[in-house]
Amino acid sequence: METVSSISEFELIRRLQAVLDNHSNQENPSENIVLGIGDDATVAEINSDLEVATTDTLVEGVHFTSESISMKDLGWKSIAVNFSDIAAMGCSPIYSLVTLGLKPSQTVASLENLYKGMAEISERYGGKVVGGDIVRSDTFFISVTVVGAPCATPVLRRDKARSGDVVAVTGHLGCSAAGLRIITKNLSLPDNVKEHFANSHSRPIPQIDIGASLAVQGIECAMDVSDGLLNDLSKICVASNVSANVFVNDLPVHEHLRTYFPDIWDQLAVGGGEDYELLFTIPEELKDRISQNPNSGFKIIGTITEGNEGVKVIGPDGALKDYSTGGWDHFKEQA
Amino acid sequence: METVSSISEFELIRRLQAVLDNHSNQENPSENIVLGIGDDATVAEINSDLEVATTDTLVEGVHFTSESISMKDLGWKSIAVNFSDIAAMGCSPIYSLVTLGLKPSQTVASLENLYKGMAEISERYGGKVVGGDIVRSDTFFISVTVVGAPCATPVLRRDKARSGDVVAVTGHLGCSAAGLRIITKNLSLPDNVKEHFANSHSRPIPQIDIGASLAVQGIECAMDVSDGLLNDLSKICVASNVSANVFVNDLPVHEHLRTYFPDIWDQLAVGGGEDYELLFTIPEELKDRISQNPNSGFKIIGTITEGNEGVKVIGPDGALKDYSTGGWDHFKEQA
Repeated sequence: METVSSISEFELIRRLQAVLDNHSNQENPSENIVLGIGDDATVAEINSDLEVATTDTLVEGVHFTSESISMKDLGWKSIAVNFSDIAAMGCSPIYSLVTLGLKPSQTVASLENLYKGMAEISERYGGKVVGGDIVRSDTFFISVTVVGAPCATPVLRRDKARSGDVVAVTGHLGCSAAGLRIITKNLSLPDNVKEHFANSHSRPIPQIDIGASLAVQGIECAMDVSDGLLNDLSKICVASNVSANVFVNDLPVHEHLRTYFPDIWDQLAVGGGEDYELLFTIPEELKDRISQNPNSGFKIIGTITEGNEGVKVIGPDGALKDYSTGGWDHFKEQA
Repeated sequence: METVSSISEFELIRRLQAVLDNHSNQENPSENIVLGIGDDATVAEINSDLEVATTDTLVEGVHFTSESISMKDLGWKSIAVNFSDIAAMGCSPIYSLVTLGLKPSQTVASLENLYKGMAEISERYGGKVVGGDIVRSDTFFISVTVVGAPCATPVLRRDKARSGDVVAVTGHLGCSAAGLRIITKNLSLPDNVKEHFANSHSRPIPQIDIGASLAVQGIECAMDVSDGLLNDLSKICVASNVSANVFVNDLPVHEHLRTYFPDIWDQLAVGGGEDYELLFTIPEELKDRISQNPNSGFKIIGTITEGNEGVKVIGPDGALKDYSTGGWDHFKEQA
């Protein structure tokens, strides 16, 4: 019997989507759904206004452990990963719904700390928590849904990359993955360095302002880097029916990552995951205008090309290098 | 140390809400949130249009077991309980997001059946599944968020009952709780009777059409009956700062319930839970107009009175009867 662990997450989603498609109502089509399953967020039209919605869940033992993150940071992060999806659509958050699956033995104080982290991030970026559900569960989980509104139209999406575009990314890559290594392996590093990496992992900053700015300036193709640059750029290529080249020497890599991870900094930057930066493409005609601001907060790292050859990564020595890791697949991990 | 099981679910929500309130941003108030935590759904204003959002989660071993419900019915029910909240606001569903927490050993075929049930209900009522998240979890759970739009304004809410209103409820009460008893205790009953009760429990019908009709006709106070009539009417009383009297002999009780549960039909009707009917109040001035239609789909069961005395239930013999069960509190259940 075929089980969840015997097929890929991608294939499972495709199979479930097929069930929904087979039942789609001919008499009552969902005319108000502009963009369904497959992008960072769903886009719906309600009374001629566009909105976006996304949901992301963190499960204890899969996405975090009580040793790997404080409850306050977990609260921040559970909202931040959703805000990152909203940012990737060029939108800003309006409200959040939070579902907690709780073990009866969990302390009220720890949950108050969780909510402090949630309150802090919505104090900074909006998207206040306005409701949710609390259920008993033998496995602790936090499921967050965020609804947002576009800062400009069209909203950013994955399938708009075109041959000739350049590829760009915000912030730094690889620091979050380094942070996870440091926490789980309890690596010994100077305090300030440790803090830099731990914060990258535990308190990601959703790039809402940059996402909005990109949409306003006419950028159309973006997604957030949650599964690693290589994996996520591949998704843009598949959705847009293009290929890409990326140059490792052009990646935004923090000096701490090069210094403290001299042998694997490039692996962490290319495939680390959980960066929650914005990955986007800039069409030729916008390139000069958008790139000329040195404080723009992003870096050009490659080019979009024709064909269906996926993503080629040119390593530090200028030669093609295979960084394929298969990305994150939580079911496969255990299988 | 205070734990989740040592306080009530209500108190836990109050404590977490207090954390959010302490951090509410003075410079950036959530002006677009019309109604936050505490009603069946959140009401938000986006670009001057109102929308509602609700989320409900079903956890294996807490809300269902693989013996108590088929996967297809579970798919239907996981959406239906959310649609019921949307109906209770006088709204209709626009789109749904589904998060699955899956054990690696679950079969793909069983999940396809789950989605068939979801597809069937949205084929009937709209609110198509347009996205979500799939995560690995040692505990199987289904978390659904539904966004809807008002069929008329103002939307229905819990805090609008006034002394002098009559109390009304749609459909029948108690059949779902009877269904759960029959399934879990494997009671022997005629097939058609068993099917009636099992369907009441496993395939609840969200009262979207009636909710919309009530809002259009000027009703302002409603909620859905998910935790039992007594428990839920008490919530209306607390929110509206009123009391209520309910007459058991006026409750809409199916003949099968009286026949096959002669000793406890009234207990099941008053406190059974999971009815997913609409409970609402009708102001004096609307009573004649709204009640005159014999096919209206609801029944008047009591009155709203002044004070804070909660809900008094007048039993089958005309005397006050104490049906208090403490309602459903999934944490207490185990504690």
